[in-house]
Amino acid sequence: MNASRTIAVACCQLAPKIGDLAHNRRITERAIRAAALQGARVVVLPELVQSGYVFHNLGEALALAEAADGPILQLWQALAGELDIVIVGGFCERLEGERVANSAALVDASGVRAIYRKAHLWDAENAIFTAGNGQPPVVDTAFGRIGVMVCYDLEFPEWVRLPALAGADLLCAPVNWPDGPRPAIERPAEVVRVQANAAVNRLFIAACDRHGNERSVNWVQGSVIVDPDGYPLAGPAEEGGEQILIATLKLDEARNKRISQHNHLHDDRRPELYRAGGLL
Amino acid sequence: MNASRTIAVACCQLAPKIGDLAHNRRITERAIRAAALQGARVVVLPELVQSGYVFHNLGEALALAEAADGPILQLWQALAGELDIVIVGGFCERLEGERVANSAALVDASGVRAIYRKAHLWDAENAIFTAGNGQPPVVDTAFGRIGVMVCYDLEFPEWVRLPALAGADLLCAPVNWPDGPRPAIERPAEVVRVQANAAVNRLFIAACDRHGNERSVNWVQGSVIVDPDGYPLAGPAEEGGEQILIATLKLDEARNKRISQHNHLHDDRRPELYRAGGLL
Repeated sequence: MNASRTIAVACCQLAPKIGDLAHNRRITERAIRAAALQGARVVVLPELVQSGYVFHNLGEALALAEAADGPILQLWQALAGELDIVIVGGFCERLEGERVANSAALVDASGVRAIYRKAHLWDAENAIFTAGNGQPPVVDTAFGRIGVMVCYDLEFPEWVRLPALAGADLLCAPVNWPDGPRPAIERPAEVVRVQANAAVNRLFIAACDRHGNERSVNWVQGSVIVDPDGYPLAGPAEEGGEQILIATLKLDEARNKRISQHNHLHDDRRPELYRAGGLL
Repeated sequence: MNASRTIAVACCQLAPKIGDLAHNRRITERAIRAAALQGARVVVLPELVQSGYVFHNLGEALALAEAADGPILQLWQALAGELDIVIVGGFCERLEGERVANSAALVDASGVRAIYRKAHLWDAENAIFTAGNGQPPVVDTAFGRIGVMVCYDLEFPEWVRLPALAGADLLCAPVNWPDGPRPAIERPAEVVRVQANAAVNRLFIAACDRHGNERSVNWVQGSVIVDPDGYPLAGPAEEGGEQILIATLKLDEARNKRISQHNHLHDDRRPELYRAGGLL
């Protein structure tokens, strides 16, 4: 294996403050620098870490939204260039026509490589964000082929299949998982779904959650980095809170979809039967 | 809720002996009667419990295969009628033209309601079985709408989606999960995938594994009954071995795909984007 195909990836589980853009930039810079100092070449940040999540209404979101040339992406581009890393993080994106998207950017030393707009909106997001109609990007970076999607997108295995089929080694997913009830001994279902998504596609997934009560909403705090067998390499932490999870990934493992002498997870799919069954 | 919509389901984790058809009938009869005595209205048996799994070659499988009017389905029909239950179990099905299928039957008091032929074949199965080209059935029974598939089929979320979209309350999956390495503290990835399949569709899944070393193959022994949130109601047992798992299911929970005020797991799918992305 080429040495450059073994990389460290970080999930920085932070607590943005809603509406405090300067604070949020500061905590992302601090975490990105800390992760890079520990050797991370890919740094994943939470969904909407630039703005916070629990908006009262569209007006508040519009007031906090930034375009692709706004301060948060300028900061992340500067840091990606200085530290020679890839950053994937969520931000409230200003669109034309008084609209906003729940977006994630992939930034590397050369600049903004992709902006993805969340295609499956969660609950009250439907009243605020315009859903994306674009595909989850797969970007060929110096540190692997990286796919991007956001939070509730992960609950649609069809959506995860697309970057996997397009050759992603690693799927980076900024998330804000609202906390809910579950059996005391169980790992959160959000994490279980990430594990299964990784296993059925044999790719790495880094899902970066947040912490910090926001307008009465709490979070799973379940950031996790999962291997192509579906097992966690880092996280989820029992206690949650602020943390920087780091795992070393042998990316070539994700290029091999063979799981037995006669099986290949992607070639074994039977699209004609799925079509006949009315999947799409 | 209608009382009849709350039912007990059993997974009978047994150890068939390869080639000993009379023995295999006996152990299924014993387990089915024991499960019914404990109140189960739906009884799930392992994949290929009629014949055993690790065939040397097609010739051996042909010699052990049975048609739909063979002894195993006659037995299960008699028991389903006597006990007024649904039985879902795996058998080696004799097809025309010297061929066999890795099949599962759904039998109730009225007879054989469906025979499903495994569509995604695992490893050496490819040299023995003819893959099915039919859809996973969804049968409206006295104890809920029940879907059927077999083992490796579960690794294709597209396939699980089909009976879910067709209105299955409960998916019954006979499996033979060959054991493999995993981190000591982790639940088997096979079980994790079942959990995720249940959660992304909000349906119940009963996966019935086997035990008993067979020609040097061992098994996960991970039978599990999972609820629509993706959490186990029964199993997986730590120790495995022979067991009858029983769980009580409130089937109406699977009829409600709403997971927030503004979200519905099936209506939120975006098939046009999946098509544009090249899913099928």
